[in-house]
Amino acid sequence: MRVKLKNVFIVYFVVSLVGLLCALLQLGQPCDCSQQLRAERRRGRDRDRLLAELRSGGARGEPRAQGGGRTLPTIYVVTPTYARPVQKAELVRLSQTLLHVRALHWVVVEDAAAPTALVGGLLAGSGVPFTHLNVETPPERRRRPGDPPWLRPRGVEQRNRALQWLRETRAPGESGVVYFADDDNTYSLRLFEEMRSTRRVAVWPVGLVGGLRFERPLVAGGRVVGFHTAWKPERPFPLDMAGFAVGLPLLLARPAARFDPQAERGYLESSLLGGLVSPAELEPKADNCTQVLVWHTRTEKPKLRQEEQLQREGRGSDPHIEV
Amino acid sequence: MRVKLKNVFIVYFVVSLVGLLCALLQLGQPCDCSQQLRAERRRGRDRDRLLAELRSGGARGEPRAQGGGRTLPTIYVVTPTYARPVQKAELVRLSQTLLHVRALHWVVVEDAAAPTALVGGLLAGSGVPFTHLNVETPPERRRRPGDPPWLRPRGVEQRNRALQWLRETRAPGESGVVYFADDDNTYSLRLFEEMRSTRRVAVWPVGLVGGLRFERPLVAGGRVVGFHTAWKPERPFPLDMAGFAVGLPLLLARPAARFDPQAERGYLESSLLGGLVSPAELEPKADNCTQVLVWHTRTEKPKLRQEEQLQREGRGSDPHIEV
Repeated sequence: MRVKLKNVFIVYFVVSLVGLLCALLQLGQPCDCSQQLRAERRRGRDRDRLLAELRSGGARGEPRAQGGGRTLPTIYVVTPTYARPVQKAELVRLSQTLLHVRALHWVVVEDAAAPTALVGGLLAGSGVPFTHLNVETPPERRRRPGDPPWLRPRGVEQRNRALQWLRETRAPGESGVVYFADDDNTYSLRLFEEMRSTRRVAVWPVGLVGGLRFERPLVAGGRVVGFHTAWKPERPFPLDMAGFAVGLPLLLARPAARFDPQAERGYLESSLLGGLVSPAELEPKADNCTQVLVWHTRTEKPKLRQEEQLQREGRGSDPHIEV
Repeated sequence: MRVKLKNVFIVYFVVSLVGLLCALLQLGQPCDCSQQLRAERRRGRDRDRLLAELRSGGARGEPRAQGGGRTLPTIYVVTPTYARPVQKAELVRLSQTLLHVRALHWVVVEDAAAPTALVGGLLAGSGVPFTHLNVETPPERRRRPGDPPWLRPRGVEQRNRALQWLRETRAPGESGVVYFADDDNTYSLRLFEEMRSTRRVAVWPVGLVGGLRFERPLVAGGRVVGFHTAWKPERPFPLDMAGFAVGLPLLLARPAARFDPQAERGYLESSLLGGLVSPAELEPKADNCTQVLVWHTRTEKPKLRQEEQLQREGRGSDPHIEV
């Protein structure tokens, strides 16, 4: 068959036209930078993680994550709190302590019918990872003005609310440590690294409590064999709330363990710990309980006589200024 | 002229061939991601700078280069302290606050005949740059047990000792800010950034003081025009010790300015400030003195009745354990 130049041209015309179109389509498409960008962004994320660590205390002298960068068990610090003139000051001061500690989650539980803006704003600005809860103490269990502090222990329902939150949100076997830190105590940074290795229940001395310079578990051969305390030594666990931490897996494995709001005076700690361990199982920290790393400090109730006077005269401190 | 189909085809052949080649060349070229990458890398560099700062302790008290490599004015925090059961707890708590503040130097002055191991060890382990001084309050000016707190203000000689140290060791005109921070108050971290820009004397509100929710300077048109206080408003400077900071150059330029140990009750602050500025010259901070960033918290004196009892029985808390 004889090939006509014309036909050749027509075939070429069609082919080249198609090719040209394809090429033009290609040109129209945006550059694919995803690979290079992904690399850069990964580096960015790594830096962010480091920054978060350093900012939250990683650069503050605490041991780095062991086991080749394995993440630390999270310390859940449970703080019950209630409205009073020094509340913000107390929480600000505590937040500055916790801000130094890595792998820490602050569970703040207000004794209130609803979360307050004061506590919410303070937590949001604290830089500490937190969960903000609330539960109101039922009237019959509330302390009345003038009641001695020991008559009705504060924060019982609030601590139990935190336990409920942990059981609802943490996975069984998830690593972690739970510590009940009231907002008026003083905590050394070393305390948190001591409690980080808690397996079941760890204990240590508490300063300025029970009318003593300190209360502490007595240790022999690495085991708790007794307690230095002046008050009700017959208690199964003569420990202050600030003197122990509980492993999260143990708390999750014992869903019934909680603080008993009806517990006799001084037996609140025992009401929780009794459902978790025997005294012989306690894990002594702080150099076999020879170091005081937490102090049961109490802040004075400020006298606001002049404020009441000025308010009667309509010259009180500006109520729009938060204290 | 008659157009031949053949010629048309030839022209088209040439044109399309050139176009096709150009298109193919384009396809061969690598993607230009420089813009997106530049943005990502800039973010990365910012993070690296922050990391370097944090790692090099930039957030831990040492001065940090700012903007054009200028260093921040150092904040000299002057803390008088005296031996008592809660002393260590108070200083531990305060040290954790100061540890968050860049370009800060802590001048701790003990009311003692010699520096104590307790305070010295605490300072050495605090991570805060510090100077440890001491001066004993002369017996005739010492507060006796049972004296009301206001009878003899504490810490006067100690604060003057710190002023002396500053004048002996700082160069005239050296930039810096001096703040008198007692060991029991509560300080928000923002307070330190507010006082950093002090030129002569800066002022702000103080919470829970003078029987009020807060005392504060009253500001109009950016100037202090009065004071919200219930107690002795006739004082030239009705301010709490925690409510002002002084520029270091001004202190060095007025070598006679100091606290008057003989000052009438409530006039201690005025005895220093009167030698430095007039009330009209005060520089209002904290949003024109509308923010409470420091609280005059007071820690309860712990009752150690059981301790005394046990000690009488020879069973007191181990005296070798520091509290």
